Amino acid sequence: MSDLVTFGETMLRLSPPHGERLERTRTLDVQAGGAESNVAVAAARLGVDAVWLSKLPDSSLGRRVVSELRSHGVRTGIVWDDPAESRIGTYYLEPGTEPRGTDVIYDRADAAVTTTVPEELPLGAIRNSDVFYTSGITPALSETLAATTERVLAAAQDGESTTTVFDLNYRSKLWSPAEAREEFESLFPAIDVLVAAERDVRSVLEREGDAPELARGLADDFGFETVVVTRGENGSVALNEGQVFEQDVYRAETVDAIGTGDAFVGGFLAKRLHGGGVGEALEYGSAAASLKRTINGDLAVISPEEVDAVVEHEAGGISR
Amino acid sequence: MSDLVTFGETMLRLSPPHGERLERTRTLDVQAGGAESNVAVAAARLGVDAVWLSKLPDSSLGRRVVSELRSHGVRTGIVWDDPAESRIGTYYLEPGTEPRGTDVIYDRADAAVTTTVPEELPLGAIRNSDVFYTSGITPALSETLAATTERVLAAAQDGESTTTVFDLNYRSKLWSPAEAREEFESLFPAIDVLVAAERDVRSVLEREGDAPELARGLADDFGFETVVVTRGENGSVALNEGQVFEQDVYRAETVDAIGTGDAFVGGFLAKRLHGGGVGEALEYGSAAASLKRTINGDLAVISPEEVDAVVEHEAGGISR
Amino acid sequence: MSDLVTFGETMLRLSPPHGERLERTRTLDVQAGGAESNVAVAAARLGVDAVWLSKLPDSSLGRRVVSELRSHGVRTGIVWDDPAESRIGTYYLEPGTEPRGTDVIYDRADAAVTTTVPEELPLGAIRNSDVFYTSGITPALSETLAATTERVLAAAQDGESTTTVFDLNYRSKLWSPAEAREEFESLFPAIDVLVAAERDVRSVLEREGDAPELARGLADDFGFETVVVTRGENGSVALNEGQVFEQDVYRAETVDAIGTGDAFVGGFLAKRLHGGGVGEALEYGSAAASLKRTINGDLAVISPEEVDAVVEHEAGGISR
Amino acid sequence: MSDLVTFGETMLRLSPPHGERLERTRTLDVQAGGAESNVAVAAARLGVDAVWLSKLPDSSLGRRVVSELRSHGVRTGIVWDDPAESRIGTYYLEPGTEPRGTDVIYDRADAAVTTTVPEELPLGAIRNSDVFYTSGITPALSETLAATTERVLAAAQDGESTTTVFDLNYRSKLWSPAEAREEFESLFPAIDVLVAAERDVRSVLEREGDAPELARGLADDFGFETVVVTRGENGSVALNEGQVFEQDVYRAETVDAIGTGDAFVGGFLAKRLHGGGVGEALEYGSAAASLKRTINGDLAVISPEEVDAVVEHEAGGISR
Amino acid sequence: MSDLVTFGETMLRLSPPHGERLERTRTLDVQAGGAESNVAVAAARLGVDAVWLSKLPDSSLGRRVVSELRSHGVRTGIVWDDPAESRIGTYYLEPGTEPRGTDVIYDRADAAVTTTVPEELPLGAIRNSDVFYTSGITPALSETLAATTERVLAAAQDGESTTTVFDLNYRSKLWSPAEAREEFESLFPAIDVLVAAERDVRSVLEREGDAPELARGLADDFGFETVVVTRGENGSVALNEGQVFEQDVYRAETVDAIGTGDAFVGGFLAKRLHGGGVGEALEYGSAAASLKRTINGDLAVISPEEVDAVVEHEAGGISR
Amino acid sequence: MSDLVTFGETMLRLSPPHGERLERTRTLDVQAGGAESNVAVAAARLGVDAVWLSKLPDSSLGRRVVSELRSHGVRTGIVWDDPAESRIGTYYLEPGTEPRGTDVIYDRADAAVTTTVPEELPLGAIRNSDVFYTSGITPALSETLAATTERVLAAAQDGESTTTVFDLNYRSKLWSPAEAREEFESLFPAIDVLVAAERDVRSVLEREGDAPELARGLADDFGFETVVVTRGENGSVALNEGQVFEQDVYRAETVDAIGTGDAFVGGFLAKRLHGGGVGEALEYGSAAASLKRTINGDLAVISPEEVDAVVEHEAGGISR
Repeated sequence: MSDLVTFGETMLRLSPPHGERLERTRTLDVQAGGAESNVAVAAARLGVDAVWLSKLPDSSLGRRVVSELRSHGVRTGIVWDDPAESRIGTYYLEPGTEPRGTDVIYDRADAAVTTTVPEELPLGAIRNSDVFYTSGITPALSETLAATTERVLAAAQDGESTTTVFDLNYRSKLWSPAEAREEFESLFPAIDVLVAAERDVRSVLEREGDAPELARGLADDFGFETVVVTRGENGSVALNEGQVFEQDVYRAETVDAIGTGDAFVGGFLAKRLHGGGVGEALEYGSAAASLKRTINGDLAVISPEEVDAVVEHEAGGISR
Repeated sequence: MSDLVTFGETMLRLSPPHGERLERTRTLDVQAGGAESNVAVAAARLGVDAVWLSKLPDSSLGRRVVSELRSHGVRTGIVWDDPAESRIGTYYLEPGTEPRGTDVIYDRADAAVTTTVPEELPLGAIRNSDVFYTSGITPALSETLAATTERVLAAAQDGESTTTVFDLNYRSKLWSPAEAREEFESLFPAIDVLVAAERDVRSVLEREGDAPELARGLADDFGFETVVVTRGENGSVALNEGQVFEQDVYRAETVDAIGTGDAFVGGFLAKRLHGGGVGEALEYGSAAASLKRTINGDLAVISPEEVDAVVEHEAGGISR
Repeated sequence: MSDLVTFGETMLRLSPPHGERLERTRTLDVQAGGAESNVAVAAARLGVDAVWLSKLPDSSLGRRVVSELRSHGVRTGIVWDDPAESRIGTYYLEPGTEPRGTDVIYDRADAAVTTTVPEELPLGAIRNSDVFYTSGITPALSETLAATTERVLAAAQDGESTTTVFDLNYRSKLWSPAEAREEFESLFPAIDVLVAAERDVRSVLEREGDAPELARGLADDFGFETVVVTRGENGSVALNEGQVFEQDVYRAETVDAIGTGDAFVGGFLAKRLHGGGVGEALEYGSAAASLKRTINGDLAVISPEEVDAVVEHEAGGISR
Repeated sequence: MSDLVTFGETMLRLSPPHGERLERTRTLDVQAGGAESNVAVAAARLGVDAVWLSKLPDSSLGRRVVSELRSHGVRTGIVWDDPAESRIGTYYLEPGTEPRGTDVIYDRADAAVTTTVPEELPLGAIRNSDVFYTSGITPALSETLAATTERVLAAAQDGESTTTVFDLNYRSKLWSPAEAREEFESLFPAIDVLVAAERDVRSVLEREGDAPELARGLADDFGFETVVVTRGENGSVALNEGQVFEQDVYRAETVDAIGTGDAFVGGFLAKRLHGGGVGEALEYGSAAASLKRTINGDLAVISPEEVDAVVEHEAGGISR
Repeated sequence: MSDLVTFGETMLRLSPPHGERLERTRTLDVQAGGAESNVAVAAARLGVDAVWLSKLPDSSLGRRVVSELRSHGVRTGIVWDDPAESRIGTYYLEPGTEPRGTDVIYDRADAAVTTTVPEELPLGAIRNSDVFYTSGITPALSETLAATTERVLAAAQDGESTTTVFDLNYRSKLWSPAEAREEFESLFPAIDVLVAAERDVRSVLEREGDAPELARGLADDFGFETVVVTRGENGSVALNEGQVFEQDVYRAETVDAIGTGDAFVGGFLAKRLHGGGVGEALEYGSAAASLKRTINGDLAVISPEEVDAVVEHEAGGISR
Repeated sequence: MSDLVTFGETMLRLSPPHGERLERTRTLDVQAGGAESNVAVAAARLGVDAVWLSKLPDSSLGRRVVSELRSHGVRTGIVWDDPAESRIGTYYLEPGTEPRGTDVIYDRADAAVTTTVPEELPLGAIRNSDVFYTSGITPALSETLAATTERVLAAAQDGESTTTVFDLNYRSKLWSPAEAREEFESLFPAIDVLVAAERDVRSVLEREGDAPELARGLADDFGFETVVVTRGENGSVALNEGQVFEQDVYRAETVDAIGTGDAFVGGFLAKRLHGGGVGEALEYGSAAASLKRTINGDLAVISPEEVDAVVEHEAGGISR
């Protein structure tokens, strides 16, 4: 039995040093990155018993991912695939500098995870978890995964006390808004807590209004227990049992923006699992997200004490 | 036949890592840098068939420069000098951080290029080019080069449809303003397009007035087809056939400022060579310059798509 | 018109620093690597006008490969593929240290090059070349490429004075010996010069005897003008018009063994193109190969002077 | 319940890059290192469910050690100490190059672990393990730890099916041979399997004879079930129930010799725990040790497949 | 005879690269750092004949500290301690990024310096110096050092023309405000020039009022010749013979804030020793401090020309 | 008064990382290197009070050299030259790997040191030294320096108890054997101790015979007190007052061979200055040289204890 189970793809993230371009770099930094493992890492580091489920080639590259996640205290449930027959997804990230945009090149087609069928997954463990989390990336990766996502969400729904959490995470490089919308809406009935970027709610789910209105509309139409709308620099809004919570972002100097949203979700879930209310969880998630921004890589290498310090505005300075 | 031919010195640029000082550094980053090859690289990357002419020692260091320039698509026409008898210019660059200024130490005296005589250069190729470019650094390097510059500009003038472009690039470590002025004014009759920093027009050419007045005065006195006055943070101004064009700079976070002016010229010429008007070319050059600022090294490692995105204010954000 | 045209796949080669393992590394060194471009680079550096043909995604990763090859003087003829629809092959290389073997993980399935059809290639340029080279890797990559290989070899055969050169380069991770044998034997009639590792001749072509016997058997059965059998530490043997040439390896301290065979072929072809006999070419190729071993990466970053010094046993020592 | 429980100190290992000296280095590589965790890592990577017990300051440095060990699949049972009141042991390692010796500077006095009392440790887990392992370093670190070592060995002895394994690991920088001998001999009655370097048996335990005689003498005097005598380049000898096993070392190119003995023990125990005989375990341990030598750091970052390949003499070469 | 003698502890400073966390870093940058040697380095680089006195283990680590300080022109008077019996203090520094605070982990207990007794120090040299400097860190390190500090200050007072300078440098990780206050007040009679952070004057010395009032109160109560109160971003205030001087900070982009205060003191003392007035010295010290912020490490790697340029507001720009 | 004074050029040594080529490297390691400062560093580290005299540009590059030498305890007497008018010598070093030779590119023409006249040097300090050392590189650098070398040797000869030591150090890239021979022979009368590579004695001084014969011939013809003939891998031979001493080299794994000869001389002189006989000095110098080979850079970063350990064959192994 675990507090949090997540399921999804984790890729090798390959990025050149600061100020260097992919076209010309001689070295790439390597890290593990993927929405569902990012959430698991953030939550595990904040005291949650977290498990990440996936499929990986049984190679040094697959083991690398597991090794990195385990180092943060995440437990892993891996379907090991024949390395001669499968690959690991990768993505190349060249961080932007104004006015040069960030360049992301996905090379994730046909990754091992895309063939995962429900029979390979520990559905019992999912059913026994307090929270099951996956994101809109997972069903976008393959038809097989779309079907599997449906099945594991159903399994989680079967759990007596399992809350299902879903982050839209719309990726335009994977599918069209229309395809995504259709898939998302078919999954929504199995979801208790929806997290979505305001811009995705507008462009993918084709809804209008301000953030609280968007949340209310979604909750009304699909019966979500909680809807969290993230608004980038403008903070976040949550609707829970009719009540609206608003949260500003904490000021941060951004070293690496990738994974900020996942740190937010990991922090939010950690606070909720530890008994916090939705407002507290928004605050905690925002603080976790602001800390993530100061750290290289997808992963929120943070501690509960640090998140508390941000929430209590005690951060900064040098203690010696 | 080529679109653009440039002639000038390229040095090895040696600089310590960020936050480290020359006095104490254990490693130096090495790159090729020189106004004329910087312009050729920027133009070549933006779709121009560009050739850089120079003289280098026939050693691994000379080959290094050619190798780096070729990697950006520049073609090279090199006079290879006996490595036992010649050297390559170098410069040490310690980037500043407020309030500490940037430290540039030139070690370029007696570089191979300073002995280049016109007979060593492919004057026919210069005559057949659409644009021939050199800068005020070249005649400053040696008396031989001053004479050679005169000759190659004359050859370019002989070309039926060759436009000669000259960037003042006044360097106080190479000569006095009075020396430079005398030399520049003797070269001006052979020049069609003059590019000059406003501050150099004032202090070296000893002219007064605002930027458009400076441009008009120069055009009137020397018969330039086009005069471009660059004004640092204040943008640039061009005068072409009596018409004035003004251009703001694009906001940029500066990773490395060296080479910004050369990226501007490379972008300007690329747009002109592709048929753009002077106003468009100013815009395109400014966008190229702003992108250069985000990249380590003298060279503008940029693409046409990126320049277009800046011009169209579409840059920034992460597409994934 | 060019001296040498090669056609094949070039991958990004990703490898951890010395003494570090893929499973745990935080950085990967990146270089371009592929048999056909390795041969082109070695030959170009040794004075041959060499062109490499391939298909790549039109992304910073595709440009990276071209940029690196161009820096060595290779000209490139690239079919640029839509980056949203295609990928670049990669391979992960963890060099071994006795008794730990070298770990190679290919991630090259469905690379852009695998869809190359003859219509996309400059068949005229192939016909006009002095030597056309490809290796047994190319037809192994896809059925499309197998057909294309056949067609380009036929085109080369049509060239009035084009010699076709083929290196078996059997890769057990791509196909079985039986599949390879069938394909190879169908290509052999179009090939003038065959290069093959002794071990592949035995296990893939299922032939027996010592190296000269293997060469003779192949020449007799398929009508090759020249057969070169490489024997690892035991040197190489060539059969040309009935005459046998034997060559020892030059002693070398191995920094990186990958690409040694390609440097051998590049050196062999350079000497042949410059009018050398088969014996001289074996010697020159062996020297190029021994130098390659001292350099990190797939590419033979060498000069004609260095190869000559090895051949003349003048290498070593410090000249100052 | 776990297969293997180890207890001891793990330090931060700080070492300069190859060819650089501590006196002048600007960077230090950091890794976790300690005999008992090294053994746990080697065993865990070879398929054993391994737990490492220790005490660490509750700081980023303490978490760093746990994080690194967990990445290799070791479970950890840590007594977290007040970081304001405790420290983590460190050691500086400057690897030697003939004729320059290796320089090891211990800075481990008063590390948190030295205050560990039995009440802080999960004695039940020790009792339930199949194998409990500690080394002669542990009792040398403090009087408290000497007493604690005695108590945990006694607890392990209480386990119904727990085998106690002890590696002498004499450290001359921690105590004198006489002190060590007295302590060791008081612990021996609680030990089932003794591992000892031949040189320590001679100089610390003051015994004479060849390796089998040394093993037999120790077994006779102290009733060990198994005695393994390691002999550096000369291999190892084991005595088990009267039977002598001898094992040569496998040839290896040494990248880093530290931790070789611990990899040997980890491999030996892994094979024994998986049902192998003493001879097989010596072979397996020797193979693990030879692989360790090829890897930077204290830890044996190896896989069962790699150890098998060494045992079966199939290692080497490049498979591609 | 020397201009400046300082006495205190210097540690190895170990810090991860930018954006990396101590918990996960694989490398640490190493430098020497300690208030008293930082002051000596800043002063020496600004033309002062400076000597630093301390005790260190006679090991490569101890020599490393001396070597680094000597490279900046500081002369050293070291009591070399038996390396088997002593250690060097270290501190781990993880620089913060908003909103993440800076993490400093001291590991300095029982460092060699803590056992220094007056008999080991060259009291004559102290008596013959123009300025003797130590800080409030020294007496906080051990009871022995508290007594020694008292004795060396007394020796300095005996010097005919020796000015004693003391920087409070309160460190909450070493002692409580009450302990510090008692110790400080017992040392004050021997001190001529007091430097203190405003916040320490309030919280440790328990005084109130604005900065000039604080200075005046301290001068009145303890008879200081000069009191300098540093106020972080708000500049500094000095009281000298009844006259108040105020100084703003110079704007600086902070690369590394550690050592800023010591650079200030070093600059202040250099200007005073070269005959400058207190106002000039404040200005010079502030300029030195602003330059220090642009440089990695504790040490102010600066030149007199650079400090002058800041004072004269001539800094910035690129001269070429 | 000092034990040893040396005079000569020190350059910046720029070299690519292992396995990388100058033509393609992105970074260069920087160190100070020059025969006379190398000797001073080796001697200073072995307990000699050593001073190095030279001329350098008053820039960060000049200060860098002084800073590095001072860190090893060498005192420096520098003529600071106007940085706008002078340069520092540099040399590029690409270490070879069999069969690829080492590539040394000197860029030292017109370095500041080449203009040094005797009036700029502290001739009194030279006269008061126990040993004055320079090498055959110094007079080769310029006519001015040839004259200055003559004058400083004469000054040293004037010293009551100054021994003059001269290492031929013939550099074929600086002058011809005939030029060198003429210059050397004009200097010999002022020299007490000659050090020369056997190969230079043969090819430059045009002498024949085995090493003892070469030494005897030189001593007879020029009246040297001592002649040391170094023979690379074959050890060294010394002739002193008619007595011949022979010394083998100590086995060493070579990390960097540059500076080996200077470490030999530094060790030899250190032992002589400390009262050792010629035989002991040869032994000590050979040991210092063997240690140098294990260290990156020109400088022998070694300690007396380490040299003693090599002499006593106690080196190797790990003490812990």
